Amino acid sequence: MRFILGFLAAITFSISMSPTMASAGQVTDFRLDNGMQVVVVEDHRAPVVVHMVWYKAGAADEPAGRSGIAHFLEHLLFKATTNMEAGEFSDVVAANGGSDNAFTSQDYTAYFQRIAADRLGLMMQMESDRMRNLLLSEGDIATERDVILEERSQRTDSEPGALLREQMTAALYLNHPYGVPVIGWRHEMETLSRADALAFYQRFYAPDNAILIVAGDVLPDDVRALAQQYYGPLAPTGNLPERLRPSEPPQLAERRLIYRDARVSQPYVKRSYLAPERDSGNQTTAAALAYLARILGGNSATSVLGQALQFERQIAVYSRAGYSATSLDDDTFSLIVVPSQDVSLTEAEEAMDEVIAKFMQDGIDLEQFERIKMQIRASEIYALDDVGDLAERYGRALTSGLTIADVQAWPQVLQAVTPEDVMQAAQMIFDRNKAVTGWLMQESTEETQ
Amino acid sequence: MRFILGFLAAITFSISMSPTMASAGQVTDFRLDNGMQVVVVEDHRAPVVVHMVWYKAGAADEPAGRSGIAHFLEHLLFKATTNMEAGEFSDVVAANGGSDNAFTSQDYTAYFQRIAADRLGLMMQMESDRMRNLLLSEGDIATERDVILEERSQRTDSEPGALLREQMTAALYLNHPYGVPVIGWRHEMETLSRADALAFYQRFYAPDNAILIVAGDVLPDDVRALAQQYYGPLAPTGNLPERLRPSEPPQLAERRLIYRDARVSQPYVKRSYLAPERDSGNQTTAAALAYLARILGGNSATSVLGQALQFERQIAVYSRAGYSATSLDDDTFSLIVVPSQDVSLTEAEEAMDEVIAKFMQDGIDLEQFERIKMQIRASEIYALDDVGDLAERYGRALTSGLTIADVQAWPQVLQAVTPEDVMQAAQMIFDRNKAVTGWLMQESTEETQ
Repeated sequence: MRFILGFLAAITFSISMSPTMASAGQVTDFRLDNGMQVVVVEDHRAPVVVHMVWYKAGAADEPAGRSGIAHFLEHLLFKATTNMEAGEFSDVVAANGGSDNAFTSQDYTAYFQRIAADRLGLMMQMESDRMRNLLLSEGDIATERDVILEERSQRTDSEPGALLREQMTAALYLNHPYGVPVIGWRHEMETLSRADALAFYQRFYAPDNAILIVAGDVLPDDVRALAQQYYGPLAPTGNLPERLRPSEPPQLAERRLIYRDARVSQPYVKRSYLAPERDSGNQTTAAALAYLARILGGNSATSVLGQALQFERQIAVYSRAGYSATSLDDDTFSLIVVPSQDVSLTEAEEAMDEVIAKFMQDGIDLEQFERIKMQIRASEIYALDDVGDLAERYGRALTSGLTIADVQAWPQVLQAVTPEDVMQAAQMIFDRNKAVTGWLMQESTEETQ
Repeated sequence: MRFILGFLAAITFSISMSPTMASAGQVTDFRLDNGMQVVVVEDHRAPVVVHMVWYKAGAADEPAGRSGIAHFLEHLLFKATTNMEAGEFSDVVAANGGSDNAFTSQDYTAYFQRIAADRLGLMMQMESDRMRNLLLSEGDIATERDVILEERSQRTDSEPGALLREQMTAALYLNHPYGVPVIGWRHEMETLSRADALAFYQRFYAPDNAILIVAGDVLPDDVRALAQQYYGPLAPTGNLPERLRPSEPPQLAERRLIYRDARVSQPYVKRSYLAPERDSGNQTTAAALAYLARILGGNSATSVLGQALQFERQIAVYSRAGYSATSLDDDTFSLIVVPSQDVSLTEAEEAMDEVIAKFMQDGIDLEQFERIKMQIRASEIYALDDVGDLAERYGRALTSGLTIADVQAWPQVLQAVTPEDVMQAAQMIFDRNKAVTGWLMQESTEETQ
């Protein structure tokens, strides 16, 4: 999505060839005997490697009432194991000139290091160690729980926009655990215990629930040998249950809410619709929604919302549509409009809905469609430049119910999208009954919905 | 709540004496060695007995994604056991001149029979049998699942008001399982299996998770002997976990929704606030809320909402406030206003909020307060007349975290409520951020919130 409009003319010539994954470097995949999936993405331009382990376990897999445990455990994985001291993992990575980090989403928890290619074995040695040999003291729990609570304070509780998002998401999902924030509800985070962390760890951290992704200056056979050496000896958990989360009942009524906060300097309107995500072998609707987001509210002066609200009517200072295609279960398609000074949120929302209604009637401007098709083509090609991003793309997809074939087909699926596909997808998702509309407002503002 | 206003003058004299439980019949309680709690309520006016078994397991105790299993199991308990044929239970009750039924709520599942007192042993024999010896065939599952689906069709899907309530409840609770309907979401009910039913049965149906309540023409020693004979031999499950459900995060924004349905003939506005329930040893707030419901919208011509909206302004044809004090976790306090012809829902809601605002400013009419205090005193005394109702009262309380002492204290707690308590409770619960407002509308009506 980092495409810059000014470069468009130049790019149309240079990117006309084969926008497929294969051009970025060979992708090889195999499984170890213990069930661990391995994906190797070759990129021999620099002697660097990205080593990632992705667990098919995220916040939406947490037991009810234990929100935040997936992310908490992510933090705790940097504590001691039977073979390492607390903090040693990152120290060793740093001492070897690398960097490491981890992240947790609703659908996965991932750990990665970027380091000189000849240190891959060392990374595997340490990562395989903490997959099964974590030691947790009560002291670790107390200390790190304070860290995640502070993280929540900073990223959520001190951000009115984040609080709005949290309340909206909870209201959007009537049944599915995506309604619970990844960071966790504070009152539940405060009670997370060593037993909770170990239960999640023992349930989900296993070679047969993990995906190893190695990207960079490596050869598949070398990765295979190292993976067998370090991860191969780990016993699988076996019989892991299918990842079935509670799904949504019919949503029969739009939910609306206003979140007022004294710290709000810029009010806005946000609408989130329940929207399908990429399904294995069936990615066209998601691809069409990716277009729809760019057409309506992409990062460009010519988006439908931007054109109408920011340029023509000057009723908004910012507008955007957002859609993240990759998740295990139904995701959201969101619209946001930040009104100009002296424009009320009622006016902003009405204007937004007028734009959508007009769009549904008029259909897609074909010139805009072709421009966006080209932009998407370009960004899919640029995505291949960064082997770390590419590795992440595989990791996210494979922990979201997709296959390597799905990942490799995605650029073509995107290029095959027609304006009719987009309008059909729009028709499907723009159902106010399956949506939540939120207003972020200054506490003192009188306006109501 | 069946008090009739016209009788008020007459009653004030006749009910001035000792409004305590004890006057209704002696209450005796004890535990069997296997942990089963037993409550005996004596009433020797007729040779009849009510025999009830209450399980501390309701819809809010279901595993995520398995909604409806508590209620489904209630149905399945009338199938075969190792000692009885399917349907035999009810046949035997009927053949002995009794009646039987069962009910499921968020917090409990209960089974009861009303029958001649000399058949108590037979009831215990059959009820203790199905507590541990249930046999379930796949045929039972298929047949009875159709029955509960049909029940959902009739009670929920064909009732716009029930669908509104379901959507509102799901939007009110951001985290707690009370947001999931007791009957279950249809798409989850359709997948309920024999394994789901047996898992719930094996987890919760046990003497140490059950309360036996026998009310009527019985003596405690006889009940004890029979209970020991029939329930005593059942092995306890042991180590039952505490009933801790996920609780609500801070609710920061009122949710609003409109449910439109072609079948709606009478639109209305409903508001539900999150409200505390009776806590053991701490029932004053709940008692004050019980007053508040009667004061604002009780079944009487002089309620605050009725007076203002139905009589003075004639803007509404019906108004009511509702509060059910007894549940395990935070419950709801609801207001409903059904507008007169040609009054919009916007007007109806504004009028409702004006009434509340004025009430919060003016406070309670002390004459009305005294009248309601007397009504409550009367209804608490009348409640003692029906030994079945009384048994149910104990059952609901004991499965909602209360004790026998709490049940017996409740009439006095109610009588000790002051107008200040009521205003304080109103102040606490009338927080729009902890509320959902729903409109039920004809599909074709243009009005929006």
